[in-house]
Amino acid sequence: LQPHLVIIGGVAAGLAAAMEARRRAANLRITVLERTGDISYGACGIPYALSGLISDIEKLTVHSAWYFSERGIEIRVHCEVTAILPARSTVEFTESGQVHQLEYSHLVIATGASASCPPVPGHQEDGIFVLRNLQDARRANEFLNNRQPRKAAIIGAGYIGLEMAEALTARGIQVTLIDGGSVLMGSLEGALRDRVLDELRNHGVEVLLGERLTAFESVGDRVSRVITSGDRSIDADVVFVAIGAKPNSDLARDARLEIGARGGIITGPGQQTSVSNIFAAGDCCEVLHRVSGRRVWLPLGQPAVKQGWIAGANAALDRVIERYGGVVGTNAVKVFDLEIARTGLSVEDAIEAGFQPQTSEMSSPSRAAYFPGGSRILTRVIHDGRGKLLGAEMVGKEGVAQRINVFATALYSDVRTEDLGQTDLAYAPPFAPTVDPVLRAVFEVVRLESR
Amino acid sequence: LQPHLVIIGGVAAGLAAAMEARRRAANLRITVLERTGDISYGACGIPYALSGLISDIEKLTVHSAWYFSERGIEIRVHCEVTAILPARSTVEFTESGQVHQLEYSHLVIATGASASCPPVPGHQEDGIFVLRNLQDARRANEFLNNRQPRKAAIIGAGYIGLEMAEALTARGIQVTLIDGGSVLMGSLEGALRDRVLDELRNHGVEVLLGERLTAFESVGDRVSRVITSGDRSIDADVVFVAIGAKPNSDLARDARLEIGARGGIITGPGQQTSVSNIFAAGDCCEVLHRVSGRRVWLPLGQPAVKQGWIAGANAALDRVIERYGGVVGTNAVKVFDLEIARTGLSVEDAIEAGFQPQTSEMSSPSRAAYFPGGSRILTRVIHDGRGKLLGAEMVGKEGVAQRINVFATALYSDVRTEDLGQTDLAYAPPFAPTVDPVLRAVFEVVRLESR
Repeated sequence: LQPHLVIIGGVAAGLAAAMEARRRAANLRITVLERTGDISYGACGIPYALSGLISDIEKLTVHSAWYFSERGIEIRVHCEVTAILPARSTVEFTESGQVHQLEYSHLVIATGASASCPPVPGHQEDGIFVLRNLQDARRANEFLNNRQPRKAAIIGAGYIGLEMAEALTARGIQVTLIDGGSVLMGSLEGALRDRVLDELRNHGVEVLLGERLTAFESVGDRVSRVITSGDRSIDADVVFVAIGAKPNSDLARDARLEIGARGGIITGPGQQTSVSNIFAAGDCCEVLHRVSGRRVWLPLGQPAVKQGWIAGANAALDRVIERYGGVVGTNAVKVFDLEIARTGLSVEDAIEAGFQPQTSEMSSPSRAAYFPGGSRILTRVIHDGRGKLLGAEMVGKEGVAQRINVFATALYSDVRTEDLGQTDLAYAPPFAPTVDPVLRAVFEVVRLESR
Repeated sequence: LQPHLVIIGGVAAGLAAAMEARRRAANLRITVLERTGDISYGACGIPYALSGLISDIEKLTVHSAWYFSERGIEIRVHCEVTAILPARSTVEFTESGQVHQLEYSHLVIATGASASCPPVPGHQEDGIFVLRNLQDARRANEFLNNRQPRKAAIIGAGYIGLEMAEALTARGIQVTLIDGGSVLMGSLEGALRDRVLDELRNHGVEVLLGERLTAFESVGDRVSRVITSGDRSIDADVVFVAIGAKPNSDLARDARLEIGARGGIITGPGQQTSVSNIFAAGDCCEVLHRVSGRRVWLPLGQPAVKQGWIAGANAALDRVIERYGGVVGTNAVKVFDLEIARTGLSVEDAIEAGFQPQTSEMSSPSRAAYFPGGSRILTRVIHDGRGKLLGAEMVGKEGVAQRINVFATALYSDVRTEDLGQTDLAYAPPFAPTVDPVLRAVFEVVRLESR
């Protein structure tokens, strides 16, 4: 067999792998098999296409199949892989109802993640959506356009739930955001959570925390109400479910590749699976968390792309030349006029990882005090009280999504709080106060430590 | 003598020292002697007060003397220190023409920097300004209001020159920006410089690079023209000189404290001078550059405040308990709709420090490609080709002043390019593309290195 790289999945990680493999091996045969009809799209933009900010869902597509074809990468859409046969280095897939087989010298699994509605009573009624791929988005958009719902429930206050709260509000729909926990985005609590709750409520979003979804009620075949664990009944003629995502690892599991405790494929640092010529990348994988040293499942776009590059390079070169160092768990989201960002471990994660976390909260201005247009940034630093940074969370109207990257950089390379506090960060009146909010927050930590 | 901390200078570093000393020693007697009538002001805001964005120069004052008095810090304005007498632990100062002496147990010198016009023919004519303190700003503002100049020349394309170009343009004044070098902000060259030049010219600012100031011509006693080394004659009925700043170290020199090659006071890491109970902080000092390992003079607000804190703490506690780790030279400026930021060494600095620098330039979108409102960010990374980061420069319309802090954090703690490239930075469509411009630029460096 002539070397042949087969990639399962034609979105972020899969196409990153294809492009990087091409860069590394100009003549390598590369085939991408994609289950849906869509490739190369920015799934993270879906809320903005549904809000109307992006005028057309099709604009989320970055490159056409032609773009890849010109680079010698064959993309086959509507090809669903049904089995990986490692012993024969072959994948089996269906296309238009026909079963095909394709031999590979190297395989990259980039099957992503799925979302589905929990199987509570009524979960199959019309008007209940998950948002994972463009097809999900088209269906939801059609429903919103044709059925003109007036009240929406969103299940899950993670970043997709928060973005959808804004998106649906922008469409004039009354939103109730429901989450079984007491935090937002998985970990945001205290003053930072309250600031986000204020922002949501000031924009007319009702928020119910501590209420789990237990059932849907319907009128005809269309959803009409959400019932929660606290016996609340919320009118909703459309529902978005933003909980319950899981890695698409069934193909890998069936092929007896090693699967982790969180359901994701286990890979080595070169993104190799437990079978030497099979690599995996992106949301279908578990990943090392640098701060806890544990494997986590963290389905996010940027780690997916990086893992794709590494898998593609190593598969193309047939040796592990590139390695992925893991994640620190950086994430940002915009909600109305607020930016929310986090990185590292939450207090809960930190305790689970064996640390004794302390927290320090700080409110600082985003610009020089005299400069017009500034606002307060809330920063919460999670640390061990002895100089080790564990995580950080920030909420504010400007500069938050970029500022969290300072903490991320420090966390990735285990920079001590004292050194981070001494770093000279950019100052100019329009951008920051003389001492940046990041530094203020870190100084407070250093002061706590020196007590 | 009861412990008595005397501080010379009542702006950033001096007052930071006073406040930190108070925090560390509740009963310490603290006296601040300030030469001018102003204390606790944000000199960096002067261009914005002259532009009219900040409605009144007096708004640049952060705290009144009363604020400090309430905290047991005695502020004495219009007190000009004329001598430091280390042998007698005494400073001599004049107030209303009277000479006084004041004994100290510990002294902090925070005399800042001065700007003055080079002594070229005509430099004493009316209408020629430097901008260093509030009094300079008031005089300039009065001139602008009363004399209504129509054409301005700005000498020096550093950050103050750039900010003043915007400020005067906002007032409807035609601006010519003149600099003897070929770069902006001391090091910006190539595509990054050109983008800033385009921004300036698109806003009607004329820029003359490679032209040194040689003389002023006047009509009556008022400046009317600037003459340059290339024999150009530029009409200007007001001139702002933004070159020639130097540390105010004469008092320290006269007291035989150690002075560095760049004219600043030499301090140890605890901000102690060559006399054990005398500390110095801020723009009057030289400072360690972490990347070059050399002493530099870098008069900037944030290092000044940090050095002030450290000097104040150590002076108050009478031992070196806090240490300043040095700077990486981070700086940011807004010019019209552009953000410009830099950190670390320039190519020239790097060569001088014994490195063999390489550069890598990258243009990346500031947001997800499909997200409205994004623009290109130009990033230039300076590195040694073997994994060591030396510096970075960025120009763009958004997120630049914050993004440079990622490089600054990496530089301060000597994070390798490979590790920086692997760091997961925040991604969400409104804030960044999947792979942040910082990462894109660093990947390019890592690729160059692996060749």
